[in-house]
Amino acid sequence: MKCEVVAVGTELLLGQVIDTNSAWIGEQLALLGIDSHFQTKVGDNLDRIRSALTDALGRSDAVVVCGGLGPTQDDITRDALAAVMGVELRRSEEIVERIQGIFTSRNRAMPLSNLRQADVPEGAVVCPLIPGTAPGLACPVGEKVIYAVPGVPWEMKEMFTGWIADDLRRRAANSAVILSRTLRTWGESESALAEMLDGVIARLDRNPTATLAFLASGMEGLKVRLTAKAGSETEALTVLDAEEAAVREAIGDHLIFATDSETMESAVLELCRGRGFSLAVAESLTGGMIGSRLVAAPGASDVFRGSLVAYSGEVKRNLLGVPDGPVVSAAAVSAMAEGACDLFGADCSIAVSGVAGPSESEGVKPGTVWMATTVDAQTQARRFLFPFDRERTRQFTTISALNALRLRLLQIDKDPVPWH
Amino acid sequence: MKCEVVAVGTELLLGQVIDTNSAWIGEQLALLGIDSHFQTKVGDNLDRIRSALTDALGRSDAVVVCGGLGPTQDDITRDALAAVMGVELRRSEEIVERIQGIFTSRNRAMPLSNLRQADVPEGAVVCPLIPGTAPGLACPVGEKVIYAVPGVPWEMKEMFTGWIADDLRRRAANSAVILSRTLRTWGESESALAEMLDGVIARLDRNPTATLAFLASGMEGLKVRLTAKAGSETEALTVLDAEEAAVREAIGDHLIFATDSETMESAVLELCRGRGFSLAVAESLTGGMIGSRLVAAPGASDVFRGSLVAYSGEVKRNLLGVPDGPVVSAAAVSAMAEGACDLFGADCSIAVSGVAGPSESEGVKPGTVWMATTVDAQTQARRFLFPFDRERTRQFTTISALNALRLRLLQIDKDPVPWH
Repeated sequence: MKCEVVAVGTELLLGQVIDTNSAWIGEQLALLGIDSHFQTKVGDNLDRIRSALTDALGRSDAVVVCGGLGPTQDDITRDALAAVMGVELRRSEEIVERIQGIFTSRNRAMPLSNLRQADVPEGAVVCPLIPGTAPGLACPVGEKVIYAVPGVPWEMKEMFTGWIADDLRRRAANSAVILSRTLRTWGESESALAEMLDGVIARLDRNPTATLAFLASGMEGLKVRLTAKAGSETEALTVLDAEEAAVREAIGDHLIFATDSETMESAVLELCRGRGFSLAVAESLTGGMIGSRLVAAPGASDVFRGSLVAYSGEVKRNLLGVPDGPVVSAAAVSAMAEGACDLFGADCSIAVSGVAGPSESEGVKPGTVWMATTVDAQTQARRFLFPFDRERTRQFTTISALNALRLRLLQIDKDPVPWH
Repeated sequence: MKCEVVAVGTELLLGQVIDTNSAWIGEQLALLGIDSHFQTKVGDNLDRIRSALTDALGRSDAVVVCGGLGPTQDDITRDALAAVMGVELRRSEEIVERIQGIFTSRNRAMPLSNLRQADVPEGAVVCPLIPGTAPGLACPVGEKVIYAVPGVPWEMKEMFTGWIADDLRRRAANSAVILSRTLRTWGESESALAEMLDGVIARLDRNPTATLAFLASGMEGLKVRLTAKAGSETEALTVLDAEEAAVREAIGDHLIFATDSETMESAVLELCRGRGFSLAVAESLTGGMIGSRLVAAPGASDVFRGSLVAYSGEVKRNLLGVPDGPVVSAAAVSAMAEGACDLFGADCSIAVSGVAGPSESEGVKPGTVWMATTVDAQTQARRFLFPFDRERTRQFTTISALNALRLRLLQIDKDPVPWH
């Protein structure tokens, strides 16, 4: 079974928006065991969208087309689909009501243009999920199918995982099961991990029961992904369990902070929860990013008390009891960590103080970051030097600080150096 | 003149690497006044690369193919080019020496596999610039041309700007300049903006001096992009200035918070700076996202004092003087805003308190958010109801709260409703 992706939008061709949807869908298709040999970007032009869809359908069994389902004049994917199917567009009263309902629930009048989103090619099936106002469509063309989803990533993902994936699986009638497991690591570079894993990699090359890939994912960690293709889910899981054990053996448990979609912050919150600890944060250069990541996980409130974003030295001194002197220092960051525990009445804390750049501050080089953790009134501080731009320095500071607390809560006295 | 982009690499189709090269090249082509109607991703497969190149060349005058020029066995773009040109590959001694030289200069032995990079299709012109070890190629096919560049972004960019751009300009003999301008809005839906702009859109349809497109970009705002193609940069700028004025006239200045790459937070910081105001934040459901966005802009420190992430009701009461009673309320969020000014000694502040979901909290429906702004000791609070998931509720809360302060600093008493 083959499935292509067609991303619609002139802004994608002009490079004003980067098409990340095709890559995400390609990854999902791979996990479903479906080949995706071509992926195409095309602009908001009826003839060209039609020809892109026709070409894709000629080469493959299914096509996912993203974008061009909005309410405006340049959203013409519906028209292109009708043309490819050789049918007319019909307005669906049911969809009109659903869209109308969305606006009513917000006490807004529905602009008439939104009605265009209720136009459905005859014979197309409407996706039962409508996360936004754009309905998704499954358009049969002979034995083949074109799925149309919005270009808005979260709407597209909801429809793909909640609807298209099942339909594709059914069509593929793929007896092979492809499962993958992602081990999220922090503390070593890709090349260092590759060296630690060369034995595993060599063995998998000789006997490919599974594939192993590295995915550098910034604040989400450096991922080691294992993918197994087997006759049944049980077989695939057995292979993944064995290979996960081999990887953990080779690189050491402490580098692996989470599995699959679990994050560094959820791992830290879970460790705190297990020990009955409440958590506070004091942030400088991260500006609230650490707190923001912590509350991204539902249920953070039973552990996370709060964060003080002390962006000025004065605030650090007044609210956290930071002593006079340089604020990017072991003394300052330690005082911040202890001050955070006092201020929020927390059992443990994380503090960061540094220079995100681009220019140096008070004679301190950009990328210089001090981090401290306080656990049971014991404080440890360490200095990091990141060779990154402002944004990546703040992101690496966030995950590195969370990881420092994770290791302390695990009582692993190892300091990963997460940026070479 | 039309030029397509073909990105080669199975990792692109599998979503392990996101293809940013095509977008970058598309942007460069637009600035050269060259149309790019299709962009294709294809895996490391000889037949499929050949067919992608043939299709692209059939539709366009030129093609830029990225990737597959490396030294390994799966780097087969050279072979595909020879096949499309109908010629043989010949090893270029000159390139062998250049690659050899690169390794020697690094005191490293050249792996024999690198010799493959010296294989050139007969009749192809080698790019004089070799930033890495992969040589770029210009392959004439009749009157048309295929440029082959490495997939490594910095190598590709160096070759494109230093070599391909000039050759394309010469071939296009194109004096046209294409410039675009993005107006970032917040407060109305895409369909509502489209209705306000229908006069402008209709006029541009009749007389297309410029194109107008909407780009929904989440926390970056809903963008209205104007693109003008003209004989000279001056002409293009004149058109953009006139159309920007028309758009501002049609939708009202207050909806437009920034232009091009300027962000909501930089707009707010600039307004504070202009009034000599310092800024403080008190955050609940956003967990630090507002502060984190503010410090993303270099130089925020002259305005932004800090943020208190008060994630527990107790912290809100103890540190911000929130009265007893419900914390998602006008009274609580107003106290938070005033408490933030006191705590950080700031002239103005933003406060948010709400339920990000997924489940309700203390009987309050998910998506319910109270926001307050304090300016000159005057506090205003408003209630929002977002129909989103947890993460997007936090993001929309962040930009909406910043926008609320922006409007107050501009003394525009209008409350945008920024979420359909």
